[in-house]
Amino acid sequence: MNLSSQYIDLIQEELKKLDIPESPSNLYAPISYFLNLKGKKIRPILTLLSAELFGENIEQAKHAALAIEIFHNFTLIHDDIMDEAPLRRGKPTVHEKWNTNIAILSGDVLMIKAYEQLALCPPDVLPDLITLFNKTAIEVCEGQQMDMDFETRELVNQEEYIQMIKLKTSVLLGCALEMGAILANSSQRNKSEIYHFGVNIGLAFQIQDDLLDLYGDGEKVGKQVGGDILANKNTLLSIMAQSHADEEQLKELKRLKSEKDTILKINGTKSIFDELEVKSKCHQVMQDYYQKALNHFNAIQSENKTSALLYLTQALMKRDF
Amino acid sequence: MNLSSQYIDLIQEELKKLDIPESPSNLYAPISYFLNLKGKKIRPILTLLSAELFGENIEQAKHAALAIEIFHNFTLIHDDIMDEAPLRRGKPTVHEKWNTNIAILSGDVLMIKAYEQLALCPPDVLPDLITLFNKTAIEVCEGQQMDMDFETRELVNQEEYIQMIKLKTSVLLGCALEMGAILANSSQRNKSEIYHFGVNIGLAFQIQDDLLDLYGDGEKVGKQVGGDILANKNTLLSIMAQSHADEEQLKELKRLKSEKDTILKINGTKSIFDELEVKSKCHQVMQDYYQKALNHFNAIQSENKTSALLYLTQALMKRDF
Repeated sequence: MNLSSQYIDLIQEELKKLDIPESPSNLYAPISYFLNLKGKKIRPILTLLSAELFGENIEQAKHAALAIEIFHNFTLIHDDIMDEAPLRRGKPTVHEKWNTNIAILSGDVLMIKAYEQLALCPPDVLPDLITLFNKTAIEVCEGQQMDMDFETRELVNQEEYIQMIKLKTSVLLGCALEMGAILANSSQRNKSEIYHFGVNIGLAFQIQDDLLDLYGDGEKVGKQVGGDILANKNTLLSIMAQSHADEEQLKELKRLKSEKDTILKINGTKSIFDELEVKSKCHQVMQDYYQKALNHFNAIQSENKTSALLYLTQALMKRDF
Repeated sequence: MNLSSQYIDLIQEELKKLDIPESPSNLYAPISYFLNLKGKKIRPILTLLSAELFGENIEQAKHAALAIEIFHNFTLIHDDIMDEAPLRRGKPTVHEKWNTNIAILSGDVLMIKAYEQLALCPPDVLPDLITLFNKTAIEVCEGQQMDMDFETRELVNQEEYIQMIKLKTSVLLGCALEMGAILANSSQRNKSEIYHFGVNIGLAFQIQDDLLDLYGDGEKVGKQVGGDILANKNTLLSIMAQSHADEEQLKELKRLKSEKDTILKINGTKSIFDELEVKSKCHQVMQDYYQKALNHFNAIQSENKTSALLYLTQALMKRDF
């Protein structure tokens, strides 16, 4: 992704320019710490690329891009508390390094800081930006709640799962992109097309994540292969398996959930997935969303239509299997 | 406060009209529950009265008023987690009735819902409203962090304490009032005067709270008399005592902090407070802030200047000693 390294630098620079006070240090040290963790900065880059696509210059779009990035960081800090995650981007999470109360409060401040950036956007488009942002922010919280609810449910169907990942992760990509179109005063049609491009890319990307967890190259992906199976996590793979399995396979899948031997557990589950052709079925669902995304992209009408956005999304979709 | 009962009803009605979805129920049931707890609705009423004072009609101010009230509720839900409070307005807190994760997330959604109300305000004043709101919201979080930091500190001086209560509670009153002036397109001078009226009223009110805890009529105040002493809480009373005590009194105050007998603890501490005339000293500080507030009110220039706001604040200041 050399293409976007200049944009990453720009976002990093702007994040450094944020006026984060020194005191109270228990509130602001975690914020500085978290904003400085290395990340791919995909969401704010989407806003910048979208603004360019619709003929707006990047300088005009940087505050909206920062709002998206800061909001994303807020969700990570609070999600990490809820998921009791010890690490984020290879470093201790805020509630681990400080404590839960500090993580709650510094997350709250980050959310407000996202709105501070929004308030710096051009006043003529501010109402539209903030309305979209609010709608999306609430959906992201709904997605997180659904995700937590699913943890205690035995059965989750494909439709529910797609709805959950759509809310939890995809709508923010759609929002990041639509903001570029709003800033450029583009047409309603274009705003809608770029939004749905983002949402569908997000869905394809999340399904790819599910696939990589089991079928990816562990070293390249940087995670334990089969980690989702070990954690008995609902993913598109497990849901697909459950909906196609016969009675005997269902019984075996259920038994494997409490299998203690990790190798037996992963291999046993994977072998049923293979019998049911779960990999290719999920791959097909992913491809369908990717194709939908491309259709929305192709429907965009813009004189400045460049392929920068497409390059970025293609790069994101080309992770190893 | 019959004067404001019509306003309380209006705010209650508007809160009921909010579009709170049914699902996910673990996210939205706590929000409906909390918004329906009875409260005095002082903050949104301040916005409505301020808008009227500056010649704007109430209908135009209701979304800003709701934003303030909803934001206040968000802070209560998150503060209750951090303070491990079991009850709020006589009912179980959200983290007690549901759990901490649900309280974090439903609080987050409430904060976004506050911004939803802001986004419904007239676009020409939206940038000013949101800028003031963001600044205030961050200050409120800073105040909460200072309050938590003070819990583990032995010495807090008066200046630090006043700064903490100013941020944690008073600036939101100032913000609620200034929003009325912003909505009415009033002068910079008036915006500033009404803001500082609110901040100083808030300081006086908080000091009154500290005084009532020990010198109030327990039944009327609805709390254990001397509860702050029992909890070894830093209040203006304890800070005032500490700064005027001689060596022997300081030693005795310190010893009383670990006294197990509650009656001995409260009476012993109170008797030193009496020797040091803590009550009248704190009362004087409170009166000074109240007078400052009135001076700011008197400096307001408005043709519609009515006394509704003054009545309300006088009623608030006339709690029993």
